[in-house]
Amino acid sequence: MNKGLLIDLSGTIHVGKKLIPGALEAVRRLQKEGVPFRFVTNTSRETRALLHQELTELGLEVPVDYLFTAPMAVRRYLEQERLRPFLLINPNLEPDFAGLTRDDPNVVVVGYARHAFTYENMNRAFRLLMDGAPLIAIGKTRYYQAEDGLDLDTGPFVAALEYAADTKAYVMGKPSRQFFLAAADELGCPPEETVMIGDDADSDACGALAAGLSAVLVRTGKYRPADEEKAGCKGIVTAGDFGAAVEMILAGEVSC
Amino acid sequence: MNKGLLIDLSGTIHVGKKLIPGALEAVRRLQKEGVPFRFVTNTSRETRALLHQELTELGLEVPVDYLFTAPMAVRRYLEQERLRPFLLINPNLEPDFAGLTRDDPNVVVVGYARHAFTYENMNRAFRLLMDGAPLIAIGKTRYYQAEDGLDLDTGPFVAALEYAADTKAYVMGKPSRQFFLAAADELGCPPEETVMIGDDADSDACGALAAGLSAVLVRTGKYRPADEEKAGCKGIVTAGDFGAAVEMILAGEVSC
Repeated sequence: MNKGLLIDLSGTIHVGKKLIPGALEAVRRLQKEGVPFRFVTNTSRETRALLHQELTELGLEVPVDYLFTAPMAVRRYLEQERLRPFLLINPNLEPDFAGLTRDDPNVVVVGYARHAFTYENMNRAFRLLMDGAPLIAIGKTRYYQAEDGLDLDTGPFVAALEYAADTKAYVMGKPSRQFFLAAADELGCPPEETVMIGDDADSDACGALAAGLSAVLVRTGKYRPADEEKAGCKGIVTAGDFGAAVEMILAGEVSC
Repeated sequence: MNKGLLIDLSGTIHVGKKLIPGALEAVRRLQKEGVPFRFVTNTSRETRALLHQELTELGLEVPVDYLFTAPMAVRRYLEQERLRPFLLINPNLEPDFAGLTRDDPNVVVVGYARHAFTYENMNRAFRLLMDGAPLIAIGKTRYYQAEDGLDLDTGPFVAALEYAADTKAYVMGKPSRQFFLAAADELGCPPEETVMIGDDADSDACGALAAGLSAVLVRTGKYRPADEEKAGCKGIVTAGDFGAAVEMILAGEVSC
């Protein structure tokens, strides 16, 4: 087998609590054929463990370490660079960063902290930035749809710190090159032998192509007709849905 | 008397808890000569009453309504436009906004809220902005010098809301034209018969000139040599200090 797959979740495998038809069967086929794969997501709202539990409830039976999340990519980067983070994150995401050295922090990591976005925490992050610490953002999303309306996501608080300290955050997660390379590394495949499957032309497909991976854009989830033409890159291959994308890859129609 | 004075405080009348030499005497001279004047400041960290108390302790004996602050300008604007604000401010600034209608808010006002910059308050402001409410900022300062280090000021939280709702704040306070016009109006003088005295070439002098006032830049406080030449406007008159500026104006050397 000379290819591995990175698979987006929301819009590709499921939409909310509903699976995309045929997705479960296609995942089982990958398992049966022994194709290495991982699921990749930007979310920092919950731990990988909780996300895994929700997917299991949908019927997706994969080990927890098949989920590669932006917080994990950040963790991997922190370990590689031997950085000591000040974590401005939701306390319920803490388990994903357990065991890291955090005394005398020399980097600021901002995720979806929600109620932990206090003045004190923001000010502590700011002072570290003014002392020269770099700023890492777990995504820079403006807002998301909550049950009772729109809620602020990570992005505005990252923007606040960027403005305060006159700096630019290093944003981790799709579509960053670093994120795709870390995910491919996790998979154990070189980028040129890895295919990304997702429903976001820019974030999934163009991001993966720019990092040297192949990409298949599925026409489900947030996909809208001609997205692959409006995207900021050329050469996106599309498939009707995740099942069709898997068929296409197993049949060798996408070289990688 | 055909002129009125608007006077900056920090750097012009005092630096921290120390008066600029001769400033007290010059203020007394204005009172004796019957020249109308007001002090103008951007601060939203404390009420006008508390600021007044601090100035009184320095020996400056003026009525409280001689202080024209950015929060007051905002209040005046809200009243003129019959707007119902959601106030994201420090609770101890609340008295400066007492009596305004605040049910069913249709404008967001952000000042130096400090501990009131909670996720809930930021989110409430954000939702109002997404519903079309305009955003008013009481200044957009990045940070200020606190006793134990630098502390975040109003600006970063304004930047967060601007990023979240993809909007631009209407920033009130010096150097905004609206602010100088409101202060002159408070003084009861037309802009062309009003002189601004301050130590900030851009914020005080250029701002006032752009609003149609005259301006005298004092060479105290944050003033650095050639500030009047580096400034973003032409024709700034300078004086050694506040006392010299008052002499110059009373002698009629600055036409206004």
